[in-house]
Amino acid sequence: MAKEIKELTSRKESFSQWYQDLVLKADLAENSAVRGCMVIKPYGYAIWEKMQQQLDKMFKDTGHVNAYFPLFIPKSFLSKEAAHVEGFVKECAVVTHYRLKNSPDGKGVVVDPEARLEEELIVRPTSETIIWNTYKNWIQSYRDLPVLCNQWANVVRWEMRTRLFLRTAEFLWQEGHTAHATREEAEEEARKMLDVYATFAEKFMAVPVIKGVKSANERFAGAVETFAIEALMQDGKALQAGTSHFLGQNFAKAFDVTFATKEGTQEYVWATSWGVSTRLMGALIMTHSDDNGLVLPPALAPYQVVIVPIYRNDEQLAKIDEKVHGIIEKLKALGISVKYDNADNKKPGWKFAEYELKGVPVRLAMGGRDLENNTIEVARRDTLTKETISCDGIEMYIQKLLVDIQENIFNKAIDFRAKHTISVDTYEEFKEKIEDGGFILAHWDGTPETEEKIKNETKATIRCIPLEGDETPGKCMVTGKPSVKRVVFARAY
Amino acid sequence: MAKEIKELTSRKESFSQWYQDLVLKADLAENSAVRGCMVIKPYGYAIWEKMQQQLDKMFKDTGHVNAYFPLFIPKSFLSKEAAHVEGFVKECAVVTHYRLKNSPDGKGVVVDPEARLEEELIVRPTSETIIWNTYKNWIQSYRDLPVLCNQWANVVRWEMRTRLFLRTAEFLWQEGHTAHATREEAEEEARKMLDVYATFAEKFMAVPVIKGVKSANERFAGAVETFAIEALMQDGKALQAGTSHFLGQNFAKAFDVTFATKEGTQEYVWATSWGVSTRLMGALIMTHSDDNGLVLPPALAPYQVVIVPIYRNDEQLAKIDEKVHGIIEKLKALGISVKYDNADNKKPGWKFAEYELKGVPVRLAMGGRDLENNTIEVARRDTLTKETISCDGIEMYIQKLLVDIQENIFNKAIDFRAKHTISVDTYEEFKEKIEDGGFILAHWDGTPETEEKIKNETKATIRCIPLEGDETPGKCMVTGKPSVKRVVFARAY
Repeated sequence: MAKEIKELTSRKESFSQWYQDLVLKADLAENSAVRGCMVIKPYGYAIWEKMQQQLDKMFKDTGHVNAYFPLFIPKSFLSKEAAHVEGFVKECAVVTHYRLKNSPDGKGVVVDPEARLEEELIVRPTSETIIWNTYKNWIQSYRDLPVLCNQWANVVRWEMRTRLFLRTAEFLWQEGHTAHATREEAEEEARKMLDVYATFAEKFMAVPVIKGVKSANERFAGAVETFAIEALMQDGKALQAGTSHFLGQNFAKAFDVTFATKEGTQEYVWATSWGVSTRLMGALIMTHSDDNGLVLPPALAPYQVVIVPIYRNDEQLAKIDEKVHGIIEKLKALGISVKYDNADNKKPGWKFAEYELKGVPVRLAMGGRDLENNTIEVARRDTLTKETISCDGIEMYIQKLLVDIQENIFNKAIDFRAKHTISVDTYEEFKEKIEDGGFILAHWDGTPETEEKIKNETKATIRCIPLEGDETPGKCMVTGKPSVKRVVFARAY
Repeated sequence: MAKEIKELTSRKESFSQWYQDLVLKADLAENSAVRGCMVIKPYGYAIWEKMQQQLDKMFKDTGHVNAYFPLFIPKSFLSKEAAHVEGFVKECAVVTHYRLKNSPDGKGVVVDPEARLEEELIVRPTSETIIWNTYKNWIQSYRDLPVLCNQWANVVRWEMRTRLFLRTAEFLWQEGHTAHATREEAEEEARKMLDVYATFAEKFMAVPVIKGVKSANERFAGAVETFAIEALMQDGKALQAGTSHFLGQNFAKAFDVTFATKEGTQEYVWATSWGVSTRLMGALIMTHSDDNGLVLPPALAPYQVVIVPIYRNDEQLAKIDEKVHGIIEKLKALGISVKYDNADNKKPGWKFAEYELKGVPVRLAMGGRDLENNTIEVARRDTLTKETISCDGIEMYIQKLLVDIQENIFNKAIDFRAKHTISVDTYEEFKEKIEDGGFILAHWDGTPETEEKIKNETKATIRCIPLEGDETPGKCMVTGKPSVKRVVFARAY
């Protein structure tokens, strides 16, 4: 049974089934009794916690503070910013009543019809409206600016088709909401947070990303400009991993948030918002993992090293235990997280498969011969290679190995992306190549109409107008009209 | 105006107004546009984060892991455990629809009547039901036990009368939910987590607590036994600061969660749940603070030390800056958190009042004479005393001072509680003394009827049957029937 549990559908056979199998079998998350809402299991949550800790540190290092705003948004708030309500919030959970009562038939409870709310409350799908309604009271003068708040929270969007981590009715995220005295400062903030996200994705998740601007069609409803980081999954589909919005004065105007300038005039406040969510878990999984299971970057692995003893009897186990505890101490002193699995109700082979499935970056195994030779077997999860090395200085060896693994999986992902990024010049070629997946760099005339046509005909969208890279102008592959530079197309999650 | 902002109602004049003033003026929290829901402001949230970090560490040190379960609970789940639905969940937020649409009159949005949920969803008031429905799939064998999960989450209870932190419709909390193979192990877990809460309250919050068992009337709906920690506020009212429940097999039976024992039989799983919430913020504030503002224990203060420069000109400020930066380095090296406020748009007097209001444990001030003499002024928030001491070794001095302050405010709270805890033997005396507030130790016959009578006549409830202390039996002050030992009465928040 143990063996069977571990068997995943291969990526080749069905990438989406492989993903689903992996999320379930590696104990990351599962569907709940509530349609579209997931349970994030302890192992999955431990990875999310690592992400949170690192991001939170990066937010604080860039001057932000955390706060908490209400879960509920009065329905009328949503319609205050016209584009926001038009483009964004329709599918959402609506609270209409505030009391249950015993059912007249004596079975269970029913909603008390007398406890109807005067105004319905919406479970927040995003918090711009309730936050800007609050900022109105916080901001009077230029001295009150900037306001640099972040919130870690749950949000709800009533998605019809859900997939664990990638698209769920409830998800966890952080949303930064900042207020500034000038346009320049707000624009700089939006770009700064995009950089924070890109750094986090590349340095910690080992997921290479393209930083860019969204086209008007893909812009956040209520934003003047939406920046995003785009990653490429192993099935050739793109995944938007984080967004940062320059909101202009749109929400300040909708909620009448003005401030007295140094010069004594009254002006509307400038805004940004930016967020990443548990969707990052999906990006992490789909970038690195293989048919044996998860592959985790050492920087985010709940434990970086697992040690498994291989023994014939209790006496031998006692000797291994002693030896291993010495190694654990040395690893911990270097800040390396270790799990020692000497549970006696599972065989080493079962444990090996289990930790492979769970993506633990380094597995150490010590048996009787190792004990005699003062050696230990070191297995890398990323390359699935093994070697036997001396226990002397093992901690330094592992420390370096973890750095190597982090780099290696990033480089592997970079290579994959390079192999799956092409430039095309004609729409014919585009339509052919898009079937292979990957990023396609092509010229576009900048109009929503052309983008819409491409989307309808190929299911590909403009992932972003890249901020870096080739700036050569050209001609739109569809209309032949002038194009400022190539943009990034892909089919996307 | 700066002065005016800081003026609080005195505790003597109106304790509840003082509390309200303090929460608002120290920037801890405020009411939101959504009835009963609060906004936790950055300074208040920073204290809550400190609490979270410490508690989370203590949970992990005792073997627990974090997970995340859905915000929503299907209505039918609530009625599966009979006592749970009877005693607990009636006032709650009910989601009935999942879509909005543009209003026919073109103004704003309305709830789409066609998007009605088949079964209403309840915004979790607590998560026993959804979690035990999940555990059903996680637990098959004794090998799967124990399950030791904690969740950090928001919950909603539609309270009619709300007060910031103390009773709000939405609040933040953690809820631990554990599953065990034996009754003994579950009981031990419930007691262990009570001890964790008591240690946290006393060592970190500096709030002395009585550990005890709740009477049947005050027990959590669905629990076999509820343990609680009870604290005494400066107005003589008690505050329940945390609870830990031994749930027996009630939820396992309601959700049919059984496991195969080592012996091969099938048995229902044993359960506990335990939680503390943002209510702890109320306990922290009402235990230590004074008419000048907050008094924070160094262990939970967002910054433990604030440094204010007092200068005549920029040249002098530059010298002070240089000197102070040396001190900051030394303090940080000892793990002490410091804020240096050299903003030039506010006067030192304004800053002094501000940090007093915000309860920063230690304030350092450096002026021209200090610069000459290599001294610095040290002010303690708890005693409001000042002294001028040498800059040499200042970091060691501050380190010790922070320990002293932590101890001092705890001892002060212990003394207050001792002065406001009395034993009474007659109901007449009880009715007289309860008007003065404080804890009253009295004999009780153990029946819900007597407790109910006392509550109706005096508004006092049994806070707990203490686990430690005097075990002398006696006679119930009301009925004269036998009493096992004195229990703790008080009027409570």
